[in-house]
Amino acid sequence: MCHCFVRRGPTALIVEAEAVIMERLEALGRISDEPGCLTRLFASPAMRRANELVESWMLKAGLSTGVDALGNLIGSLPGPNQDSKTLLLGSHLDTVRNAGKYDGPLGVLTAIACLEQIRVAKRALPFAIKVVAFADEEGARFQTAYLGSRALTGQLDEKDLALVDENGVTMEQAILQFGGDPAKLEFSRMAGEDLLGYVEVHIEQGPVLEQKNLAVGVVTAIAGQTRAKLKFEGRPGHAGTTPMEMRQDALCGASEFIVDADKYARQHPGLVATVGQISAEPNVSNVIPGICRLTLDLRHQEDAIRRNGCKNLAKIVAGIEQQRGLKILWQTVQETDSVPCSPQLTELMSDAVRKHQPDVISLPSGAGHDAAVMAKITPVAMLFVRCKGGVSHHPDESVRLEDVRVALDVLTDFVLSIPPRP
Amino acid sequence: MCHCFVRRGPTALIVEAEAVIMERLEALGRISDEPGCLTRLFASPAMRRANELVESWMLKAGLSTGVDALGNLIGSLPGPNQDSKTLLLGSHLDTVRNAGKYDGPLGVLTAIACLEQIRVAKRALPFAIKVVAFADEEGARFQTAYLGSRALTGQLDEKDLALVDENGVTMEQAILQFGGDPAKLEFSRMAGEDLLGYVEVHIEQGPVLEQKNLAVGVVTAIAGQTRAKLKFEGRPGHAGTTPMEMRQDALCGASEFIVDADKYARQHPGLVATVGQISAEPNVSNVIPGICRLTLDLRHQEDAIRRNGCKNLAKIVAGIEQQRGLKILWQTVQETDSVPCSPQLTELMSDAVRKHQPDVISLPSGAGHDAAVMAKITPVAMLFVRCKGGVSHHPDESVRLEDVRVALDVLTDFVLSIPPRP
Repeated sequence: MCHCFVRRGPTALIVEAEAVIMERLEALGRISDEPGCLTRLFASPAMRRANELVESWMLKAGLSTGVDALGNLIGSLPGPNQDSKTLLLGSHLDTVRNAGKYDGPLGVLTAIACLEQIRVAKRALPFAIKVVAFADEEGARFQTAYLGSRALTGQLDEKDLALVDENGVTMEQAILQFGGDPAKLEFSRMAGEDLLGYVEVHIEQGPVLEQKNLAVGVVTAIAGQTRAKLKFEGRPGHAGTTPMEMRQDALCGASEFIVDADKYARQHPGLVATVGQISAEPNVSNVIPGICRLTLDLRHQEDAIRRNGCKNLAKIVAGIEQQRGLKILWQTVQETDSVPCSPQLTELMSDAVRKHQPDVISLPSGAGHDAAVMAKITPVAMLFVRCKGGVSHHPDESVRLEDVRVALDVLTDFVLSIPPRP
Repeated sequence: MCHCFVRRGPTALIVEAEAVIMERLEALGRISDEPGCLTRLFASPAMRRANELVESWMLKAGLSTGVDALGNLIGSLPGPNQDSKTLLLGSHLDTVRNAGKYDGPLGVLTAIACLEQIRVAKRALPFAIKVVAFADEEGARFQTAYLGSRALTGQLDEKDLALVDENGVTMEQAILQFGGDPAKLEFSRMAGEDLLGYVEVHIEQGPVLEQKNLAVGVVTAIAGQTRAKLKFEGRPGHAGTTPMEMRQDALCGASEFIVDADKYARQHPGLVATVGQISAEPNVSNVIPGICRLTLDLRHQEDAIRRNGCKNLAKIVAGIEQQRGLKILWQTVQETDSVPCSPQLTELMSDAVRKHQPDVISLPSGAGHDAAVMAKITPVAMLFVRCKGGVSHHPDESVRLEDVRVALDVLTDFVLSIPPRP
């Protein structure tokens, strides 16, 4: 029996479980492929050490462990009988480059601590459980996301395996070097009918919980996203000699669009519109810009609102085009539908939150998560944990000890509340 | 007597004089420091060849010639007596990199042709004339403009001579290598009291004459200019997880400023406002821009209107700062006052235009010219010639044969109308 999770007295224990999670997050945070910062790439030496360390904690928690054909680490607790359904808990162990310590690992370590707590409390579960530590969600090595959950749900193919990292190593080679087997990915695939659902604890990566002064929040959906590139074509001209009324200023048109897109999103609750990238040509102080390029990122948890947003922004573009004598090209480069969380699981999660926090807040996830991929085969639910300043993908990423405690308690109560059959 | 300028019959001659100017512009256009494009830098081998060629045309026109201590080529016609005042005509022979053929040389060659025409017509002038072919106006070699006219008016100093070109050659060395004498610049200086004025024919470098369907226009003033750099500081954030109402988007603030500056200039006739350069940080499609930098270029022929414009744009900046929670830095990097043309000379120029064109149009010069520097010591006037599409500083720069004819006739009538004393 693990010393640290023993319930000795009411307060002694309450401090300890979350402190262990925090210590383990620190330990994982020191395992990096790059000196001086945290970068843990798919199938890398750091990922091997991370898997070994997390596996040791899984074993301590009484789970049996294994690594699948891709490199996902899986810890299992059997159910009461052979045809028991399986509940999946998890998140990912890989990171972006120069990452923070919490994005991913927090979900894996909270799941392990949750099962350890349930074991210590000697509570029997009416289903099997697997904790999945995905080997790749961020996609920093091969510039493609969700390798772990895509492998588990049968959404990886030959084309993915042929992708090459910055050192010319193919994904296939990387998996082999890591000890996996690209030819056997099919055997690692899970079947939706065996599952009760997939549940992920994750830092919010946004500022809402902090602003509402709440430790955790229940995720309603992973927002759908439209990514577009816009090119504004006008006519370059001399900044001193071209009267205002004779100008076709591409940057002025682009700026009008940026202001209008911002205004439009503010008028439609839940919608977020971002122009993150901009460039002008020739980009010289005394020449009227002839060309301006920008990116648009539009997200909402309801696809209809996002699609309607695209339509209305396209109308705004047409107006600017006509009024300013510009030619504007709109190229949609990606369109991802919203993934709603399971209403049943989410309600159970809300009930669990209610026990530990004055308010239950529901919010969409603006960022993508493994849960969005897992939703293809099984119901999903997510619990967000407040992070400082909403910062993530940065060394300043930070989570409070007391919030981790709340997340752990909520997850434990949630797991204990799930019925054996959907 | 030069064959090509002989007045044989009413039409034969009318074609010829401007055709010679166009041929000479072509010949000069082939004299470049760079193969495949036109780049003629101050005190360069190409400039030496250009000076030699233009000198030969000056000699043909009956001028005596010389090169001053800086490298300016000067062709002179004496006045009727020793205390005759001198009228200066001219423009520059240097170019920007990858230039057009007309910006500069057109003014020099029209002046030479004008004097040749007057000589052929056997008209005596009651003053002396010098045609100045400035050795540097664009400043492409030493990144500083108007070397030629600044030398002539005593506005060059030791600091300028120490400037270094991209090959590490100082301006002093360059002048010496060219055959000039930096120590004797003072002797090349002209005294305002000896002069009647400085008159320059130049391409418009803007689209106004073309739009009005006129060959030439009279310049009222060389516009004053304010150049500023603005930095918008907000807070970067995740494009998916940061609600609109919690954003401090630097690019949105910058865009609002760009739209407002454009609108403000349109409401104030003659004012031109240009944001030519923009950059955002981190400039990634899924991150809210935390920083945005841009340049502002503001010009008007009346300094009060330009200064008032700066004040009002600064107020707009303060409003955006407050409303969007940004910090905005405004750094004025250059402020140049407007240089009005001489009302007397400009009126004579307008009278001359009236004889050759249905409408007399007066317009400010949004670009800088040697005339702005010469105005420090003598009254100035300028005649603009229509250029195709308003394009300049580009190989596509283009001027019509028939417009050159009009410019030549206007300049000739203008010169013939000037009284011997101001």
